[in-house]
Amino acid sequence: MPLKTGEEYRESLKQMKTVVYVGGRKVDRFYEHPVIKPAVNTVAKGYELAHDPHHRDFTTATSYLTGNPINRFNYVATSGEELIKRERQIKLASHMTGQCVYQCTGTDAINAAAATVYEVDEAEKTEYNQRFNAWLRNIHENDLTVTGALTDVKGDRSKRPGEQADPDLFLRVVDKRWDGIVVRGAKIFQSGAAVVHEHLVFPCQTIRRGEEPYAVLFAVPADAKGVVHIHQYLPGDAMRMIGDEMDFGNIQYGAYSTQMIIFDNVFVPWDRVFLCGETEFTNRLVERFGRIHRCVSCSCTSGWIDLFIGVAQALAEYNGVAKKEHIKDKITQMTFLSGRAFACGIAAAAEGSRTPSGVYLPEPLMSNIGKLDGSLAINEARRLGSEICGGISAVLPLEKDYRSPEIGPYLEEFLRGVSEVSTEERLRMAKLAQHLFFGCGLAESKISGSGPSQVQKVMIYALADLQMKMRRARVLCGIEEEESAGRRAGHGRAGALEA
Amino acid sequence: MPLKTGEEYRESLKQMKTVVYVGGRKVDRFYEHPVIKPAVNTVAKGYELAHDPHHRDFTTATSYLTGNPINRFNYVATSGEELIKRERQIKLASHMTGQCVYQCTGTDAINAAAATVYEVDEAEKTEYNQRFNAWLRNIHENDLTVTGALTDVKGDRSKRPGEQADPDLFLRVVDKRWDGIVVRGAKIFQSGAAVVHEHLVFPCQTIRRGEEPYAVLFAVPADAKGVVHIHQYLPGDAMRMIGDEMDFGNIQYGAYSTQMIIFDNVFVPWDRVFLCGETEFTNRLVERFGRIHRCVSCSCTSGWIDLFIGVAQALAEYNGVAKKEHIKDKITQMTFLSGRAFACGIAAAAEGSRTPSGVYLPEPLMSNIGKLDGSLAINEARRLGSEICGGISAVLPLEKDYRSPEIGPYLEEFLRGVSEVSTEERLRMAKLAQHLFFGCGLAESKISGSGPSQVQKVMIYALADLQMKMRRARVLCGIEEEESAGRRAGHGRAGALEA
Amino acid sequence: MPLKTGEEYRESLKQMKTVVYVGGRKVDRFYEHPVIKPAVNTVAKGYELAHDPHHRDFTTATSYLTGNPINRFNYVATSGEELIKRERQIKLASHMTGQCVYQCTGTDAINAAAATVYEVDEAEKTEYNQRFNAWLRNIHENDLTVTGALTDVKGDRSKRPGEQADPDLFLRVVDKRWDGIVVRGAKIFQSGAAVVHEHLVFPCQTIRRGEEPYAVLFAVPADAKGVVHIHQYLPGDAMRMIGDEMDFGNIQYGAYSTQMIIFDNVFVPWDRVFLCGETEFTNRLVERFGRIHRCVSCSCTSGWIDLFIGVAQALAEYNGVAKKEHIKDKITQMTFLSGRAFACGIAAAAEGSRTPSGVYLPEPLMSNIGKLDGSLAINEARRLGSEICGGISAVLPLEKDYRSPEIGPYLEEFLRGVSEVSTEERLRMAKLAQHLFFGCGLAESKISGSGPSQVQKVMIYALADLQMKMRRARVLCGIEEEESAGRRAGHGRAGALEA
Amino acid sequence: MPLKTGEEYRESLKQMKTVVYVGGRKVDRFYEHPVIKPAVNTVAKGYELAHDPHHRDFTTATSYLTGNPINRFNYVATSGEELIKRERQIKLASHMTGQCVYQCTGTDAINAAAATVYEVDEAEKTEYNQRFNAWLRNIHENDLTVTGALTDVKGDRSKRPGEQADPDLFLRVVDKRWDGIVVRGAKIFQSGAAVVHEHLVFPCQTIRRGEEPYAVLFAVPADAKGVVHIHQYLPGDAMRMIGDEMDFGNIQYGAYSTQMIIFDNVFVPWDRVFLCGETEFTNRLVERFGRIHRCVSCSCTSGWIDLFIGVAQALAEYNGVAKKEHIKDKITQMTFLSGRAFACGIAAAAEGSRTPSGVYLPEPLMSNIGKLDGSLAINEARRLGSEICGGISAVLPLEKDYRSPEIGPYLEEFLRGVSEVSTEERLRMAKLAQHLFFGCGLAESKISGSGPSQVQKVMIYALADLQMKMRRARVLCGIEEEESAGRRAGHGRAGALEA
Repeated sequence: MPLKTGEEYRESLKQMKTVVYVGGRKVDRFYEHPVIKPAVNTVAKGYELAHDPHHRDFTTATSYLTGNPINRFNYVATSGEELIKRERQIKLASHMTGQCVYQCTGTDAINAAAATVYEVDEAEKTEYNQRFNAWLRNIHENDLTVTGALTDVKGDRSKRPGEQADPDLFLRVVDKRWDGIVVRGAKIFQSGAAVVHEHLVFPCQTIRRGEEPYAVLFAVPADAKGVVHIHQYLPGDAMRMIGDEMDFGNIQYGAYSTQMIIFDNVFVPWDRVFLCGETEFTNRLVERFGRIHRCVSCSCTSGWIDLFIGVAQALAEYNGVAKKEHIKDKITQMTFLSGRAFACGIAAAAEGSRTPSGVYLPEPLMSNIGKLDGSLAINEARRLGSEICGGISAVLPLEKDYRSPEIGPYLEEFLRGVSEVSTEERLRMAKLAQHLFFGCGLAESKISGSGPSQVQKVMIYALADLQMKMRRARVLCGIEEEESAGRRAGHGRAGALEA
Repeated sequence: MPLKTGEEYRESLKQMKTVVYVGGRKVDRFYEHPVIKPAVNTVAKGYELAHDPHHRDFTTATSYLTGNPINRFNYVATSGEELIKRERQIKLASHMTGQCVYQCTGTDAINAAAATVYEVDEAEKTEYNQRFNAWLRNIHENDLTVTGALTDVKGDRSKRPGEQADPDLFLRVVDKRWDGIVVRGAKIFQSGAAVVHEHLVFPCQTIRRGEEPYAVLFAVPADAKGVVHIHQYLPGDAMRMIGDEMDFGNIQYGAYSTQMIIFDNVFVPWDRVFLCGETEFTNRLVERFGRIHRCVSCSCTSGWIDLFIGVAQALAEYNGVAKKEHIKDKITQMTFLSGRAFACGIAAAAEGSRTPSGVYLPEPLMSNIGKLDGSLAINEARRLGSEICGGISAVLPLEKDYRSPEIGPYLEEFLRGVSEVSTEERLRMAKLAQHLFFGCGLAESKISGSGPSQVQKVMIYALADLQMKMRRARVLCGIEEEESAGRRAGHGRAGALEA
Repeated sequence: MPLKTGEEYRESLKQMKTVVYVGGRKVDRFYEHPVIKPAVNTVAKGYELAHDPHHRDFTTATSYLTGNPINRFNYVATSGEELIKRERQIKLASHMTGQCVYQCTGTDAINAAAATVYEVDEAEKTEYNQRFNAWLRNIHENDLTVTGALTDVKGDRSKRPGEQADPDLFLRVVDKRWDGIVVRGAKIFQSGAAVVHEHLVFPCQTIRRGEEPYAVLFAVPADAKGVVHIHQYLPGDAMRMIGDEMDFGNIQYGAYSTQMIIFDNVFVPWDRVFLCGETEFTNRLVERFGRIHRCVSCSCTSGWIDLFIGVAQALAEYNGVAKKEHIKDKITQMTFLSGRAFACGIAAAAEGSRTPSGVYLPEPLMSNIGKLDGSLAINEARRLGSEICGGISAVLPLEKDYRSPEIGPYLEEFLRGVSEVSTEERLRMAKLAQHLFFGCGLAESKISGSGPSQVQKVMIYALADLQMKMRRARVLCGIEEEESAGRRAGHGRAGALEA
Repeated sequence: MPLKTGEEYRESLKQMKTVVYVGGRKVDRFYEHPVIKPAVNTVAKGYELAHDPHHRDFTTATSYLTGNPINRFNYVATSGEELIKRERQIKLASHMTGQCVYQCTGTDAINAAAATVYEVDEAEKTEYNQRFNAWLRNIHENDLTVTGALTDVKGDRSKRPGEQADPDLFLRVVDKRWDGIVVRGAKIFQSGAAVVHEHLVFPCQTIRRGEEPYAVLFAVPADAKGVVHIHQYLPGDAMRMIGDEMDFGNIQYGAYSTQMIIFDNVFVPWDRVFLCGETEFTNRLVERFGRIHRCVSCSCTSGWIDLFIGVAQALAEYNGVAKKEHIKDKITQMTFLSGRAFACGIAAAAEGSRTPSGVYLPEPLMSNIGKLDGSLAINEARRLGSEICGGISAVLPLEKDYRSPEIGPYLEEFLRGVSEVSTEERLRMAKLAQHLFFGCGLAESKISGSGPSQVQKVMIYALADLQMKMRRARVLCGIEEEESAGRRAGHGRAGALEA
């Protein structure tokens, strides 16, 4: 089967029996619900970009399982060049939709799993790799969309999984049967969960010996029995329920769609189970997921900031202030932030390394640095953008006011900017600014998305190679002889978990 | 008449015929509309705090016009101590409501006008001061609430008022009659405009000779003929229309209420006109308004950040992470930011100066510094707060989900934190965090509120006294003799516009 | 005896037998040594400013012991207004000399001691207060200069005083005799130690029960037997040994003079001992010293930044770039930083509180915030200043090059800026910039001066009043009733250690 | 001829008649002068690293002119991989010496010239490329060291080269002869100028039509007639004249060596002239030099920060505080800053592009971003490092004090840290910290090195592609149709000057 079109993807959702609750009610045609549909549009756009001749070079790749072209979101990368193309795909999609691409967790999960199950098999003589490849072949053949679900609800953060009052606060195997396993638990904040075909489910953190039921990796269709999606609202997305097109700002894509996924005694047949109890592999599984996720996070961040720049510059022109030095200075700073975040992603990709399975992973220090940098950058960019746009991007009348025969004329008159631009255009752009800077929550989501900043900091400290650096200092001030230090200092590679 | 209670204030609104549009429709009982009522609650709280024996010392003052106690919001200050009390009042109200106090623009406007109209009369032999005092006496006697309306819609920012395609894009006098004036124009983003008794209307910027119709200062009742209020939405406030109590986060006060005020050929009798054509006084009128506004802005900023701290610390405890070093470090940083902003307000108050009329104004350099500092501080505090709270403060199910018999039990189980705290309490606190960090827009509003940062920067540069500083440098490196420099250097006063 | 002149102070040093080592050698006339003399000039300037009619209002005060005018550096303050004057004195002296004022630790120590020994006597029926006042009366009568010496050398920071391999790594009482005590230890980084009359010596940190020998407060003349001063070099101050006047940049004052003070079995008679073994008072003694020191630190920081601004603006004019927007923007930012630091000091002074003895202390939260803020601010200001000045402030030929008949003409020609300014003037200003931004170490010294930033952070967290803030949050989201929270919230005082 | 050893390089300097003035006197054996010798050591180290089997892979390359191995500093790169190796070489050398590598301007100049003179010849039918290759072949064959000299003294910055009162304030051709040209002017702040073999001299900025004499590119030996080097002091380097080994901190390499180069009517034969009057090529010549310089600047910055980390961590261990959370947090932040700067360099290298000549240049947006980032990063790292090290890294006694029989024992006792480390080791490490954080000026030099930050900001704004970004915004809010925007958005390349 060839690459799906956006339309074919939409059709495929209609075949699914995915259980989605919004506001306490089960939604019948979830793909048409006002707060879900923008996510469908976003994923559909991801499908369309794989057909676009201008971008196909990096939005698609060739499957090593089928030999056919596939969407790069489902691709297992084997070189730095391929990783760089992935960064470009993410940046493009983020910039074009102004939205979470939703599909990157699938990429993260597929690559982290591919690299790791191979190593489990090598060490344990298991057959996870074969199962995983069979599952992935189906994904490739049918051009399906996958989320990688990792974050447990976690309960009391000062306690380990097994110590919680309720053992299901981390997802776990509650039963092992001859034909498969039964799992219970919940994954929280899963971006785009309601609009994908499959969930590839990871443990949330390193699982220790004695906590075996929590060391589980498996895949289920999004509409498997016992899987329930509960929509989680951003306050700003309530606008989708009371406003009109113009009020949405980002008309097609602008509502951030995340759901909590409940796994209520879900049965998973063995051919969809890729790890089950091998606790010693959970550390690298989780670290690799995080590393890849943080690497691509650089590029969606950069794509979004680029959109912020476009909006801010446009509104500055509509307001007649684009040539002011302080406006140019802010645009420069935003461009700096976008470019720096993207540079971290590119560098982590370029400096990556190959695992025994052949899967190529980004460099971990730069990946973590890039994520940490980007999460601060986009919040600063949001602030700068709204400084440029001014109060009109904060509070605005509704489209209903603008269309009102009584007061619409007041708005038509008083919300006019420079004479070359119509009031409606200015209002539309201001609504997009309002959505991006005061409603969409994307900038803010980076604060905890891909793990909170403290997680990246812990990784950065762990990767700092302090011994080598102290040795060099001792040489320079005459405490130690040159030779012993020379050997390793300044090896040029920032750090290497895989070595 | 004594100080109004909150209840009396609510009653007084029912007597008003204020015209308020929300979503294209004129609202009948505007004080009960879901997106307006929180503002009524907030202002009512301001009335109640004037009765509170714990705070009365700084929430009230004695009118120099009636000799009776009045709410400090309507007070004309005459000493640094009084200004410091004003800072405390603003901080208290902001912290207790988690909302814009709505009444500070009234304070700003009353004080800036009182100081200036006196000087106009001195110079021009006009009678504005007498008129103004008569108007203010009525405010004091009836304990009314006032907004100071300043910001015009401004159209093309590269053009002066008189150069705009539409002359009404800055509010102006369109007719002068024997009994008063007629004005036309619009004031944008007026916080709390719909729920006050009076508007005290200022020019937006320095008005030059030749632009006389724009040099106008006057007061009108909020329900005067031709005055129309159009509600401006924050995206997050749409939640007030679709959610339930718990979803509001800040239950009583949590929707930011601003309206655009249209003045469509509004007649203002002469006894309510306090400046009309005296362009040379507009500079100080506007500068003083801004200076006072920026000074009190330090304190609402600090009060809000204190609330952010409370929420973040509470949720950290509910999540079981409050003792982690990185959490304590972030709480420390937030406390630092809050205290520093408040310090700027206190210092500007303590270092203020008296104008010829006896009105005491805050020190301008520190006022501008404090506003600029606070607007960055609260955005950083918002980020830190949401870092502490984590993803649960970003996206959440609705109260309807939590109450649903089908999926409510899932949420009850899976959204539990530490065992000492109920799921509902954790959910309520998370909703407040969500409101504050992802919906309420208060932090973000500081970006353009009290004027954009560039305005403060221009003031700071103007007040820098570079000649004195260069002279001192020349002495130290031997270019100039000591004596001439000694005389003024380090005068201890940061700067003085009034001198 | 009246207030000393600068000249009388210089004379008084000649009478002292202070032991000072520089570069391994005991210096005969220490007050003339090239790296010590600038400190003499600086302290002399402090004496002169007390005679200056333009500044006398805040550089002097009236002694409560003698009823005569004294230098404010030796004054015990009893009101917020007095504290504000102290801030001005420090800012003036810092700005005028571009140097550490050297005398502020005396102020800190005198005030912290005065407030505390009174309380010791109240609780313990001791006679420290009487002794202290007798000692202070002598200081006042003879207009002497005092350092407050606090920082021990501390050895292994992970160990308590009594646990160190060498018990003298914290200064301690090694013998108690009928006529006095004998102390041994060392105080490190004591600014100006070699050029004062007296040392008032403090414990370095809270001393616990069982560590009594370390709980000691006393005064000794700087030339007491067994007191040795070892000069500590900043690298840049080596320029004083090889360069000429122009090379010093800050010609009169520009070498930062700190000495390690060795106390090698120094005898202290009982009438100079003000605490000896009362461990439970060391906490407040040290905290108050730190609090006062951090409060005045705001003002020297601000004074120095003002000097940076003067130099940067002057050199920008000499280079022909002062009107560029990015230069103005940096000057604005520096002015912002200076004003904000000063505001913290003013606010901490204005919000201070009285102790039982009548001594008035600054507000502790704002004092700590101000110090922390200032130490970051001055480093940022240093960077901005050197950005404005450019490479010419980094590396420069020596005055000897400029005076050389062979190559001097090249420099005269090629180091010329705008035509209105001579090359020598530009070179002098560049040398001052070089000294301030690349040599003097003042900005950098703030990093550890007044205690490292972590100490301030610990204090800020301790003063955050998290219980009150969480209570308010619980009210707003409906977990708790209004009333209980209302009582304390937003009390307007940032925090109060003394309450 | 093979690659020179360090020793051979030292010998080669003895053959040179380079004219160097230090402190007003011509220095006889300049390579032995205390403030020059550290630069000789640094360059010698660069030679040695090309022989080191651990690093040879990236410290050497193959000459396309001779087919032999050459030092990568003199290499003309033709691919992204080669550029990445160059970044590693710079980072290694910077980390190992803690000093400016001195040779990078040669790299910048050789590559920028190689790319450009080819294009001049293509357009103008000149023979510059052939001349340049002949000159470069000699460099390769004899393994010589080159500086690229660009920065003119510039006089009044508000005036163009031709408008200055003195026409020589920008270097220019004062005479054209049959056998060559005569140039006059001065290049300022030339790092390492005194210790190289050749200067490759660039115009300082874009030269316009009518300013032809300033459009000149040529090479001269450092000891050519009329070339005079005047040493420029950092204040801290005066320590080299009065201190002893330990006081130098960075014993071998620690004095930053820059000289002003005077060209006093220097004759340059035609075969060393590579541009002469072709003004239209100066823009790209200068931009490329800057771009390459900013790209490699990322890596020296990163190498230096790594050294700061090593010193700070070592001293934290010596002080017994390395395990404290706030120390780990600062080390983490420094590692973050180092890694991010390096990532920008790597990304700019990986995303570079080929010019018509085949020379491969880094991506310009990321190069400029990386430089700007690094210059802020290293100043923050310097601050963090000195915060970790504390006051002992600011002011210290001299080695002479430590060796003094009278007071040395005091220092031996009182400067002891943890018991596992000798006082001398702690003192040596503290001296290195002092040198790096308070004396060496490297961090600070980044402020103006590679051009001041404003230059990078102007480049970043120019490369921002605002049209594309605004188009995308218009599509998302419904002002414009999708299709036209899709075509270019998110092209994945940050920007491309060369396209």
